[in-house]
Amino acid sequence: MALITFMSDFGTVDHYVVAVKAAIILESPTQLITDITHDIPPFNIMHAANVLRNIYHDFPEKTVHMVAVDSMEEKFRALAIEMDNHFFVGFDSGIFSLISDKKPKQMVLLQKSQSTFPAKDVLAKVALKLAEGKSIKEVGETVNTMNELYERQLKVTKREIQGNVISIDHYGNAITNIRKSEFEKILKLNGSDVRYVIKFRREVFEKFHTYFNDVESGDCYLLFNSSGFLQIGINKGNASELLGLSVDSSVFIEFSN
Amino acid sequence: MALITFMSDFGTVDHYVVAVKAAIILESPTQLITDITHDIPPFNIMHAANVLRNIYHDFPEKTVHMVAVDSMEEKFRALAIEMDNHFFVGFDSGIFSLISDKKPKQMVLLQKSQSTFPAKDVLAKVALKLAEGKSIKEVGETVNTMNELYERQLKVTKREIQGNVISIDHYGNAITNIRKSEFEKILKLNGSDVRYVIKFRREVFEKFHTYFNDVESGDCYLLFNSSGFLQIGINKGNASELLGLSVDSSVFIEFSN
Amino acid sequence: MALITFMSDFGTVDHYVVAVKAAIILESPTQLITDITHDIPPFNIMHAANVLRNIYHDFPEKTVHMVAVDSMEEKFRALAIEMDNHFFVGFDSGIFSLISDKKPKQMVLLQKSQSTFPAKDVLAKVALKLAEGKSIKEVGETVNTMNELYERQLKVTKREIQGNVISIDHYGNAITNIRKSEFEKILKLNGSDVRYVIKFRREVFEKFHTYFNDVESGDCYLLFNSSGFLQIGINKGNASELLGLSVDSSVFIEFSN
Repeated sequence: MALITFMSDFGTVDHYVVAVKAAIILESPTQLITDITHDIPPFNIMHAANVLRNIYHDFPEKTVHMVAVDSMEEKFRALAIEMDNHFFVGFDSGIFSLISDKKPKQMVLLQKSQSTFPAKDVLAKVALKLAEGKSIKEVGETVNTMNELYERQLKVTKREIQGNVISIDHYGNAITNIRKSEFEKILKLNGSDVRYVIKFRREVFEKFHTYFNDVESGDCYLLFNSSGFLQIGINKGNASELLGLSVDSSVFIEFSN
Repeated sequence: MALITFMSDFGTVDHYVVAVKAAIILESPTQLITDITHDIPPFNIMHAANVLRNIYHDFPEKTVHMVAVDSMEEKFRALAIEMDNHFFVGFDSGIFSLISDKKPKQMVLLQKSQSTFPAKDVLAKVALKLAEGKSIKEVGETVNTMNELYERQLKVTKREIQGNVISIDHYGNAITNIRKSEFEKILKLNGSDVRYVIKFRREVFEKFHTYFNDVESGDCYLLFNSSGFLQIGINKGNASELLGLSVDSSVFIEFSN
Repeated sequence: MALITFMSDFGTVDHYVVAVKAAIILESPTQLITDITHDIPPFNIMHAANVLRNIYHDFPEKTVHMVAVDSMEEKFRALAIEMDNHFFVGFDSGIFSLISDKKPKQMVLLQKSQSTFPAKDVLAKVALKLAEGKSIKEVGETVNTMNELYERQLKVTKREIQGNVISIDHYGNAITNIRKSEFEKILKLNGSDVRYVIKFRREVFEKFHTYFNDVESGDCYLLFNSSGFLQIGINKGNASELLGLSVDSSVFIEFSN
């Protein structure tokens, strides 16, 4: 029996989260369900995609990830997707186009429900079937396309990487879409005598740090985080507030010889 | 071994929630405990009743629902109740009179404790005994009455249903005490050429919607939610803030021919 | 297989909490993990120590308590500690010097990691090994000292106990560092005709209460809570806001004959 994870924007003051869980427990009382988070800001598909992208591959293969974000939109079809050896069950808002570079191996359309609570009435039931080992083809009809969303893309030349903040975390750290691998590729292109500066807002830095506390408390650090993305933070402080960074803020790396 | 659910107004920054759970785990490490929510606003019995009423019947029969809301009030007796094939363990604040139309089948008074933390010292121990299959008569002495609370009642005539908002959810949706079944009964009474309008604050609507996105983003919808109650929301917006709705706000349905 | 508890200041909007859990689940899918709380205010070691001190002994002996508070500070060594028949795994911020009067029985230094996410890469792996019964000596090298932090100490004479508020809980109750046992010791010293007053801010009280509702709603109570510490609260109110109490506020008990 595979694990089910559950992520939503339901918050925790109402009965919504536990109603979905109860639908699973009612059929299979010992099914393991791990909460990712239910504090995704309401309707924020981008934040949800960012969390899911960072976490799904930390779970065992065949895990079923149940995603109920912006789940009230009936215009979105309900899908089950097999991708990168994991299963995803949720609404076709475009979120599933953002979480992996891999292509979906199989996608099926889940039977449309007349429900005003499809996370409970559709997703929970399908997630359980997949966790119990049913084939994805048994839970819906094959489809070939899903909605796609596009994040702000890096603009990359030999002399500049131009990226953006894609999320602000609990501590106020700003996470960008600039990958370490991209940075290293451009660095190499520029040869051994290359120099670079990192710029955002009114700040200019000449190097990356390795650890959060390579700087004093209250000072700004820049490092590639454990997911491989450039992160801007303040040691024991809130970078978003103190540096005026928010989602979409521009971050530049300029190279020179 | 039956499931235990746990709902409280303890919040999550202190040790209170986990102290109650630990009292169960210490005696029975594999006992399943499902959190309903611990973010009930402090002392808010009405909100807690609303959540519990919406969720308890989604769990298997014989589930033990442990409710620690306004739990510090020593004047409330501690009770265990069998009602609608579920067990409820908590304080006699009146909350248990609000969650079901069914009458309690059995009620027992739990032994008074000298504790300043009765949720841990009394409720957890009794909940575990019931989950393990002990008879309710073994955990306390039979009593015949519990405190009753009354919610604002619908005022219903052939020409008007007058209800109220009973809760605001995480998204800002306003949930009323007007049931679909009540509305349909009055509708039928008025015959086939009946018309109706729904009024609240300065808004007037002439129909109910079926889904949240039957209206454009930012527009107001009215529908009967998955629990059967009239819900007023704004597609991707906060109805409570934008329409000025709060707990107790009046909502009218007027019928005419 | 022993239980693992998990406490952090990670909050719940990001993937951090579940990334740590997933590292355990990946190796041992049925390992029981109980959340203490992830809402410790960022970097607040004192609050975390207070929660942990109140709760760890409620769990079975041999439980492994994983503590990721202020966990990004690479300057702190990672330790595993056996103390009071429990295991603690976390960073050497001084927190472990505050949670028990017992001395550590064994302490080992965990292998330094190059990780920017040591809670996931180091703590989770070691916690699992200890939960599975590995000896603490197998997970690191013995060390003899840990960082120590000192809380504000009581100042005690025969005529006065001078303490401080050490934490404000979810309800706004102010928890002090004045223990019931200390109070009773001084009371006894003063003989049978002793009188005392409790003073803080502009308030003066002449007795302790036993229960929260020994006073009317809205009135202030003083009692020794279930952990044995003097707690100042307002029945159904927020004492911190209404009485102007915050962490470090002074509280005095004066004795006279």
